[in-house]
Amino acid sequence: MYIVGIDLGGTFFKVGLVDSESGKILKKIERETRVDEGREKVVERMASAVQEISEGYDYIGVGVGSPGSIDHDNGIVRFSPNFPDWIDFELGGKLSALINKPVFVENDANAFVLGEKWFGAGKGHDHIVALTLGTGVGGGVISHGILITGRDGIGTELGHVIVEPNGPLCGCGNYGCLEALASATAIRRMALEGQKKFPESEIFKAEDVSAKVVFDAARHGDALGVFILERVVNALAIGVSNFIHIFNPSVVVIGGGVSRAGELLFKPLREMVSHLVMPSFKGTYEILQSPLVEEAGILGASSIVLQREIKL
Amino acid sequence: MYIVGIDLGGTFFKVGLVDSESGKILKKIERETRVDEGREKVVERMASAVQEISEGYDYIGVGVGSPGSIDHDNGIVRFSPNFPDWIDFELGGKLSALINKPVFVENDANAFVLGEKWFGAGKGHDHIVALTLGTGVGGGVISHGILITGRDGIGTELGHVIVEPNGPLCGCGNYGCLEALASATAIRRMALEGQKKFPESEIFKAEDVSAKVVFDAARHGDALGVFILERVVNALAIGVSNFIHIFNPSVVVIGGGVSRAGELLFKPLREMVSHLVMPSFKGTYEILQSPLVEEAGILGASSIVLQREIKL
Repeated sequence: MYIVGIDLGGTFFKVGLVDSESGKILKKIERETRVDEGREKVVERMASAVQEISEGYDYIGVGVGSPGSIDHDNGIVRFSPNFPDWIDFELGGKLSALINKPVFVENDANAFVLGEKWFGAGKGHDHIVALTLGTGVGGGVISHGILITGRDGIGTELGHVIVEPNGPLCGCGNYGCLEALASATAIRRMALEGQKKFPESEIFKAEDVSAKVVFDAARHGDALGVFILERVVNALAIGVSNFIHIFNPSVVVIGGGVSRAGELLFKPLREMVSHLVMPSFKGTYEILQSPLVEEAGILGASSIVLQREIKL
Repeated sequence: MYIVGIDLGGTFFKVGLVDSESGKILKKIERETRVDEGREKVVERMASAVQEISEGYDYIGVGVGSPGSIDHDNGIVRFSPNFPDWIDFELGGKLSALINKPVFVENDANAFVLGEKWFGAGKGHDHIVALTLGTGVGGGVISHGILITGRDGIGTELGHVIVEPNGPLCGCGNYGCLEALASATAIRRMALEGQKKFPESEIFKAEDVSAKVVFDAARHGDALGVFILERVVNALAIGVSNFIHIFNPSVVVIGGGVSRAGELLFKPLREMVSHLVMPSFKGTYEILQSPLVEEAGILGASSIVLQREIKL
């Protein structure tokens, strides 16, 4: 069975033709989003990319993983920070009219957890908590086989769970959200904050301070790098153990750029979470790095179609 | 339609005959549990109470709200702290065999949220977060109409979400769980801890220090009372806003002994939560005091039957 997945970003969108049986992306196109040209033009460009990539394939539908607040029942983008004119925009309906196929739209963090369920670390599982550690921290949850979105479809804001009251200021205005301690943005910020106290840190020998640079420094035993890593692990461990106590999932999967630190991050995280969970939860969960990496966006988007058409 | 609800406690169990249309308890029996006589005897006493109360009524089944870890699919008590010999005990099967009716068993905090959905503050809602503030803090969640229990049925341990890392020690061994800051036990503990600094507090003029005494003192402007109230509100507000960000519920209902403080607690709690939730969540939820009070146990237990027989 073939599906088209669209990973919509503020600068580029990626379109992929996916074989649902193998979970392989057969073809892939990347195009500029060009939000400034207006939403209708963006949808037209999405439609033309879908037509180009699907030529000769009888695909069942299109899934779009979009940033922002999504009315997923109706395929409407309610509002999305980097898409100023996309307010209550019928993205699904417009795109569907142009390509004459069903289109399903979902928030990108929700698409991520669906991708993990259908193609990644959560395959075969009905209880999955997913976190993406990127510019922000996104969250998606599947519980009892159902994507948890809440009354208005805006739930599972796992990045805005407070893990350190009186901790650093978050973009949302609160203090100590998971996002303010475990996103790539937070890691960079903590490094810059540490420059005065650790001017000799190898972090500042890099051309640009990034999460990768910080974690590489930690790997080499750099004091500031290790300090930041510990802070990230601590925040993530509190968040993850809370999510385990709340959802009793079989899999916690963590993706996004920050997760590429691999075992440097996952080993101490697993250890700390094992100390924080209550005895009855021991052995009930695994904490896994997302295996989808670069393909998470397109596979997540295409799995929206599977979840809607197959599961429900 | 008639249902029998059993609210099982370590010292007493209460059995009620409930009219599901009116949500009224028509008859009620309270019996000693006498755990020391062995589990078979307890079940026999439960069966005889059910038979006594249901005489002349064609009831559809029995729901049992039980403390501890429950395998709710099979009606098995896996383990329950105050019932030493109830390990993997087939409570549902045994009771059903004696009374010849379907019996459904659920954890008492889950029964509480079901009671609120069918008879209380959550009537007509599909997205409900429920907290009981008693000796401990229990939690139950209905999301998308489904009782969230997780892979092993042990989820929604909302009392063990960490809201104040490095906060007071919790019975579970972690520091700063909601239970360690907002249970009746925690309130009493905080009062006793404050005795050295506030020896003149009216709290210590009472015969016994309890959550009620502390809140009454707060109501009178007693410094220690006000200090503890603020700490409870703060912890609850972080917990509740986290749950709102996670579940996007339409109703957050709070019951248990501590909730009887009423507006003294709910007014500042609502205000603080309104500051903590992100703008998109404003107006999506209500925070309500449980209206079921003394009847929450029996109504919750009987609603297990409704949820299983009617909803699923």
